[in-house]
Amino acid sequence: MPNGSANVITSDALLAHWQGHRRLTRRLIEAYPEDKLFTYSIGGMRTFGELALELVSMGAPMIRGAANGDWTTSWDRKTVPKADILRQWDEATTQIDELWAQIPPGRFDETIKAFGQYEGRTSDLILYVIDNEVHHRGQGYVYLRSLGVEPPPFYERA
Amino acid sequence: MPNGSANVITSDALLAHWQGHRRLTRRLIEAYPEDKLFTYSIGGMRTFGELALELVSMGAPMIRGAANGDWTTSWDRKTVPKADILRQWDEATTQIDELWAQIPPGRFDETIKAFGQYEGRTSDLILYVIDNEVHHRGQGYVYLRSLGVEPPPFYERA
Repeated sequence: MPNGSANVITSDALLAHWQGHRRLTRRLIEAYPEDKLFTYSIGGMRTFGELALELVSMGAPMIRGAANGDWTTSWDRKTVPKADILRQWDEATTQIDELWAQIPPGRFDETIKAFGQYEGRTSDLILYVIDNEVHHRGQGYVYLRSLGVEPPPFYERA
Repeated sequence: MPNGSANVITSDALLAHWQGHRRLTRRLIEAYPEDKLFTYSIGGMRTFGELALELVSMGAPMIRGAANGDWTTSWDRKTVPKADILRQWDEATTQIDELWAQIPPGRFDETIKAFGQYEGRTSDLILYVIDNEVHHRGQGYVYLRSLGVEPPPFYERA
């Protein structure tokens, strides 16, 4: 019996999955040496501070746009203290929970244009934001290890 | 209106999403210099060759187990030619498509014990395998950049 149209992930499950990832990413930001956040990188890539600000600029803003069409976000990647990033992260965590509940159930399957330029099915765009976080966090793991710091375990999401 | 139980990702959509990631990971393996595959790493982490073999050992075997309870896999991470990894990758791509169609629709929401040790809801275990691939591939991006090789674009999944 083909399972193609079986529904495997509900809205609640996807949000819980992402918030688990976000807890891990927060631990990585917290573990990162403050003086290396915007100064250190490997192979000419962006610093982890810049990557973290990109994640902040995509997380809550994606869900705000999906919920009510407001695609406001910040493209600023200037150096800020680690405490500022963590504060923005925590605010976003609350906003994501609140805004997520406002996404109309049918919206996940609709095609939207995120930030006025990325067109796709809402659920795919949300998956992209999550994957982008996992991808850049994976880079952060390498930066951190190369700085002699033990990163938090990947499987721990509580 | 709360959307909590709205179904946002179908079985077909999750498989397509993963196979898109798998095409990108394959391109990264292909782009990796053969002589660095099992010799180069950063910060004492595993080589990209070892990581790629881990991904091979988790992908199709997870879906085989989910489909029919056969949790056979390989824990061997010995050096092999790049062509061997790519051949295993391509075989797994076909196997994943075939085995995925054999997962009973209700299975995704059932709790299973993967490889005799990782207990969880089937859909969560599959997401873990995908996330683990994105995570280690992100590490591979840093290794590759630090070797002076331009990695394939993250957003390209076709």
